[in-house]
Amino acid sequence: MASPDGRREPLILVSHRGPVQFARDATGRRICTRGSGGLVTALSGLAGRLANGVWICAALSEEDTAVCGEHHGRSFVANHETARGAVLRMIDIDPAVHHKFYSIVANPLLWFLQHNLWDLSNAPNITANEIDAFVAGYEVVNRRFAEVVVEEVATRAGRAVVMIHDYHLYLVAPYVRAHCPGTFLQHFVHVPWPQPDAWRVLPVWMRESLFTGLLANDIVAFHTERYARNFLLGCQDLLGLSVDFGRLTVDVGERRVAARWYPISVDVSSLEELANSPEVQDQERQLENSSREFLILRVDRTDLSKNVLRGFLAYDQLLTDHPELTGRVTFLALLQPSRQDVDEYLEYADRIRRLVADVNLKHGNTDWQPIDLRFQDSLPAAVAAYKRFHVLMVNSVFDGLNLVAKEAMVVNRVDGVLVLSEHAGVYDELGAFALGVHPFDISQQADALYRALTLPREERRTRRQVCVDIVRTNDLDKWLRTQLDDIAAMQSG
Amino acid sequence: MASPDGRREPLILVSHRGPVQFARDATGRRICTRGSGGLVTALSGLAGRLANGVWICAALSEEDTAVCGEHHGRSFVANHETARGAVLRMIDIDPAVHHKFYSIVANPLLWFLQHNLWDLSNAPNITANEIDAFVAGYEVVNRRFAEVVVEEVATRAGRAVVMIHDYHLYLVAPYVRAHCPGTFLQHFVHVPWPQPDAWRVLPVWMRESLFTGLLANDIVAFHTERYARNFLLGCQDLLGLSVDFGRLTVDVGERRVAARWYPISVDVSSLEELANSPEVQDQERQLENSSREFLILRVDRTDLSKNVLRGFLAYDQLLTDHPELTGRVTFLALLQPSRQDVDEYLEYADRIRRLVADVNLKHGNTDWQPIDLRFQDSLPAAVAAYKRFHVLMVNSVFDGLNLVAKEAMVVNRVDGVLVLSEHAGVYDELGAFALGVHPFDISQQADALYRALTLPREERRTRRQVCVDIVRTNDLDKWLRTQLDDIAAMQSG
Repeated sequence: MASPDGRREPLILVSHRGPVQFARDATGRRICTRGSGGLVTALSGLAGRLANGVWICAALSEEDTAVCGEHHGRSFVANHETARGAVLRMIDIDPAVHHKFYSIVANPLLWFLQHNLWDLSNAPNITANEIDAFVAGYEVVNRRFAEVVVEEVATRAGRAVVMIHDYHLYLVAPYVRAHCPGTFLQHFVHVPWPQPDAWRVLPVWMRESLFTGLLANDIVAFHTERYARNFLLGCQDLLGLSVDFGRLTVDVGERRVAARWYPISVDVSSLEELANSPEVQDQERQLENSSREFLILRVDRTDLSKNVLRGFLAYDQLLTDHPELTGRVTFLALLQPSRQDVDEYLEYADRIRRLVADVNLKHGNTDWQPIDLRFQDSLPAAVAAYKRFHVLMVNSVFDGLNLVAKEAMVVNRVDGVLVLSEHAGVYDELGAFALGVHPFDISQQADALYRALTLPREERRTRRQVCVDIVRTNDLDKWLRTQLDDIAAMQSG
Repeated sequence: MASPDGRREPLILVSHRGPVQFARDATGRRICTRGSGGLVTALSGLAGRLANGVWICAALSEEDTAVCGEHHGRSFVANHETARGAVLRMIDIDPAVHHKFYSIVANPLLWFLQHNLWDLSNAPNITANEIDAFVAGYEVVNRRFAEVVVEEVATRAGRAVVMIHDYHLYLVAPYVRAHCPGTFLQHFVHVPWPQPDAWRVLPVWMRESLFTGLLANDIVAFHTERYARNFLLGCQDLLGLSVDFGRLTVDVGERRVAARWYPISVDVSSLEELANSPEVQDQERQLENSSREFLILRVDRTDLSKNVLRGFLAYDQLLTDHPELTGRVTFLALLQPSRQDVDEYLEYADRIRRLVADVNLKHGNTDWQPIDLRFQDSLPAAVAAYKRFHVLMVNSVFDGLNLVAKEAMVVNRVDGVLVLSEHAGVYDELGAFALGVHPFDISQQADALYRALTLPREERRTRRQVCVDIVRTNDLDKWLRTQLDDIAAMQSG
């Protein structure tokens, strides 16, 4: 990240959600809490590394907007531990515009598309409503973010490294490039990048706009090599651009854009600190008190991509195949409520409730409920469960990376086994030491659960230890360092 | 198709459905009818060109099985006009095995996968049932077909050109190749070939088995270049094979397999003959009697890939946007009932019925129902409607080729306009002269319908004439000839 004259360029981080969110407590006092969502968990580790940079994000709560106003829309220092003293710049967005941007375009349209979740004979319907949401929502919010980036670059003498994050902000780069030619632009996509045909669900002008937006960056980054290749394939197939699959680059006019992959990771030391905190230990004791011989665990947002239903169907099969497990195992599912304003999510949560009731009725008894389903969002409870699971179920249909797998393996204390979907990005790193499963194959998932429960202790220990070593080696610091090294190399090349 | 010594090699055609089907009429007399389905329509044109070849197909009715038995399982000459005196070999298959093969694996598993129709958060579930259907149904039926091919090759002195058709028979070639090394093998895939990620819905062993099955052919043929490229991409991504995207070949051990594309077509003269038949003229008069100023038409199997719902939603939008059309237009939908043993199809037909009732209630009156929905399977009625439509709606979600577009443009008498999905294989040939639509974009489809209804007569005439010229030039004869030329070139090369 050194510029040609050896000066270190400031980092400008851009993401829809920021590291903290403001609210009022019951007494009316302002409180500052950790931002929600997996991406924030990961990126928060970067907050302390921004130096004279800034983190640009949306004002998402009423109190965020108030804070924004108090700082006259300018940046300010956030003192919450999650923000680690980072300078924040929150953008106030009209709620009606934000709704179009977020609840019509970003979720579900792009999220569903990138996770292959559309039931295409029925949805999506691109109508005047969706087109308006794209033009008067997604494009407007992206432009607003871009204008703020340009302002922040200007206050830094026109030079900075801008790191834009995820599927909410695909259209930020072109405006920034046009106004700040000296700025290095990287976009990091944290969700899967599907193959070109998946993008055909969008009208030509819409998908070309998204690709073109990303191509205004110098680097487009993903969690896995496959996503990077899929992106280049889309540039070739959908835009007719010239692609070099050896160097992983695509030529756009005179410019050359690189596709790269950097699997994101966790901040191991702060995770360990949390795992040893009194709050987590308290949760752990509660868990111990209600525990059976075996604990199978899943911790997910209640998202259609997470494959919760098939996981329970596999567990149903396990209990049918192995009646000797009756009364000896609990499947604890900690599901964070998610996107309750989207119909598909409400329906999905209903389907989950019904299936859990069925399985508990079929196999359970007055003394034992085989599935313990909790719709809740508590990090201490999740970390306590991470420490105690014997089997962690990560069977995602498609999943950008899946940080739960990394977090849980690092803090686990009982040589727990990871059952891992072949379709999660993290499979590239941990798949060889997990029990791999195919997300649609319920028979195989049932067998994998059984195998995981019955692996010899020595093998469980070895498998987990290798996973932990991998995560510790490829930690969040290395994730950032590798990207900055690549950027420096491209700047000097 | 000449062998090195100049001898013309016999053609062996292999498909699940044959050109004719046997039944008993009300009086108990055996009757022979035209086989159903789009593929049979197309392939029937080949029946007269088999010379000393044979058409191998499944016995699908009880009477087929009886005919099979009378010929002691050997081949026989079929005298029905559709079969054009071809020699048939019908294979008797145990109904329970056939059910697994057809109603669990081929439809819906492969059909849905290849048309991107799975609602992946809910389906498919690969359980013991699906695995059994693959092993004890799909593999068994494919093996039986392969054994019969080997027998028929043997009666032809071990030399033949074998043309295997469609997604029911992906596993036929390996056995034939092993037993008849002198035989040229081509597999023609009539449905879309999706990109590699779509195949990830199947467990690794299952998708590798299908790809490996196809790779035992010398040529794997498709309707469009994109499908051929997608196939090669799958060979590269999923099997790690070495692919040449310039020559469109893939190396499998010592062998080189070619991917090719030949868009299928119609037999123009027999179609014209049918269009002028008294039966069609009679249907045409009935249509005339009930007709309004404009006729919008769709003719489809009632399949989720055909996008019937969005077509009606676009029509609903058209009537809302243009109240001046009230009472002046009819949308005639001739939908052939299909796969009533698959839940998804029953639900889809229900959804269609409900939507039609809604639209008719919303826009219609006692004197006029805007949509005329008919679940029926009558070729004469379809051809009569082909002659009279002003706009033909083909808005498929994904569609291997779509022969309705070709047939209907050829026989139309009133300079009808084709509204055509970008995702139908036939778009490569006719798209430039149709009004192209994006299958998910309902606004655009509504606009296209309006534009089609209001195009000047001269432009309609020119557009249709070019379409007709293309279809006449690229007719079924040329389709076959091109393939046989390529085969001859590969045999002598």
